[in-house]
Amino acid sequence: MRSEPYELFYWPGIQGRGEFVRLVLEDVGAPYVDVARQPAARGGGVKRLLAVLDGALGVYPFAPPILRAGPFVIWQTAAITRFVGERHGLAPADDHGRHTASCIAVTIADLVAETHDTHHPTSVEIAYERQRPAAAVRAKSFRTARIPKYLNWLERILAANPAGVLVGHAISYADLSAFQVVEGLHYAFPNTLARLQPTLPRLHELRDRVAARPAIAAYLASSRRLPFNEEGIFRRYAALDPKHPAK
Amino acid sequence: MRSEPYELFYWPGIQGRGEFVRLVLEDVGAPYVDVARQPAARGGGVKRLLAVLDGALGVYPFAPPILRAGPFVIWQTAAITRFVGERHGLAPADDHGRHTASCIAVTIADLVAETHDTHHPTSVEIAYERQRPAAAVRAKSFRTARIPKYLNWLERILAANPAGVLVGHAISYADLSAFQVVEGLHYAFPNTLARLQPTLPRLHELRDRVAARPAIAAYLASSRRLPFNEEGIFRRYAALDPKHPAK
Repeated sequence: MRSEPYELFYWPGIQGRGEFVRLVLEDVGAPYVDVARQPAARGGGVKRLLAVLDGALGVYPFAPPILRAGPFVIWQTAAITRFVGERHGLAPADDHGRHTASCIAVTIADLVAETHDTHHPTSVEIAYERQRPAAAVRAKSFRTARIPKYLNWLERILAANPAGVLVGHAISYADLSAFQVVEGLHYAFPNTLARLQPTLPRLHELRDRVAARPAIAAYLASSRRLPFNEEGIFRRYAALDPKHPAK
Repeated sequence: MRSEPYELFYWPGIQGRGEFVRLVLEDVGAPYVDVARQPAARGGGVKRLLAVLDGALGVYPFAPPILRAGPFVIWQTAAITRFVGERHGLAPADDHGRHTASCIAVTIADLVAETHDTHHPTSVEIAYERQRPAAAVRAKSFRTARIPKYLNWLERILAANPAGVLVGHAISYADLSAFQVVEGLHYAFPNTLARLQPTLPRLHELRDRVAARPAIAAYLASSRRLPFNEEGIFRRYAALDPKHPAK
């Protein structure tokens, strides 16, 4: 289809939103360069990412992740995963399914944004440590209302599809996004997810099924898969996920 | 192309995210039914919207706005506006432009979500009045960092395009979304926007150009255009947009 490798531009050092893109690229086996993780001497590093934000590719992406695919420059996680998924057969083949997969992936991106806001409810410019009281309120709402709303919704979609995937008959990029958000939430909110897991059997089956795909399993075991950490979107702060939360 | 009118499902009584969809439908002159604003006796009302959320159309949309277009059911604002825009010629004709328009529209949807969070920073289940302190902090960050970041970005895109539109040579659905978010921000943050307006000449020119399009002008003057109010996303709360903010 194209021989030039894809170029992914994302902050080095964290999984973040870039991870949703990496998973799709890894699954389809598309050659790609994770540009900001390459040495600056070889045209990589954050400097190159900042140049791209500054218009170096002829468009002005708002924020990473950004994918360069030959003549195309695409940003916004769910737009990128859709693009790569549809190009490489990791998407439903019919229009109805394509629309549904895209809408689900965009909704998962919303859940990711809400996850981020649990540790930064009032300002992205202020450190978590300086907005703990608001974060505690937001995290409580997230644990008790938002996580259940989103994950029950995914579970319900799965319950309606005997194929055990979110759309159609085969794993799509939307399922990979579901995998990643479930993994991230288990990391960041382990107590909440442990409580909810028995009510989300299909979602966890899907999670396991994605993790077992050969290309994904190989990726997860590689050094390309960064560990979750407290610089990313999914952060484990004990105060935001108490073992025995007050009612 | 299709004779059956589109069906839009959105909360009645507010512009909200539904307004981004309405503007595109109105501009292209597509027949549509704003279902939840129809009488329940004629199959409308919130009850019908809730049924659709509950799977009545064969899929499970996460949240309104939802568009039914013949066999397709699409949710997420930017996905709907892209779908309608591309179908009716209110989008770039080339793939590169289509990608860029979509990425811009999704980014504007992020700005809309951030606008909402200024009055609900800690929980959507708690009234604004009960989260005022956190809202004040979030709104300050929004006024001083986020609004300028987003709107300067749009201004910069416009500065790079002699056609004075966000993508390509003609107005697209992305420009209509820019119009609506600028209008909404002027409503909700009048003091901030008045201060910023001189630095955003192209964006305001685009705003005026969209408003002057015959179908849009007719729509804005009609009773179909709901006024902004404090139940929607763009809310005017004096405390969140002080005339003379402290440094």
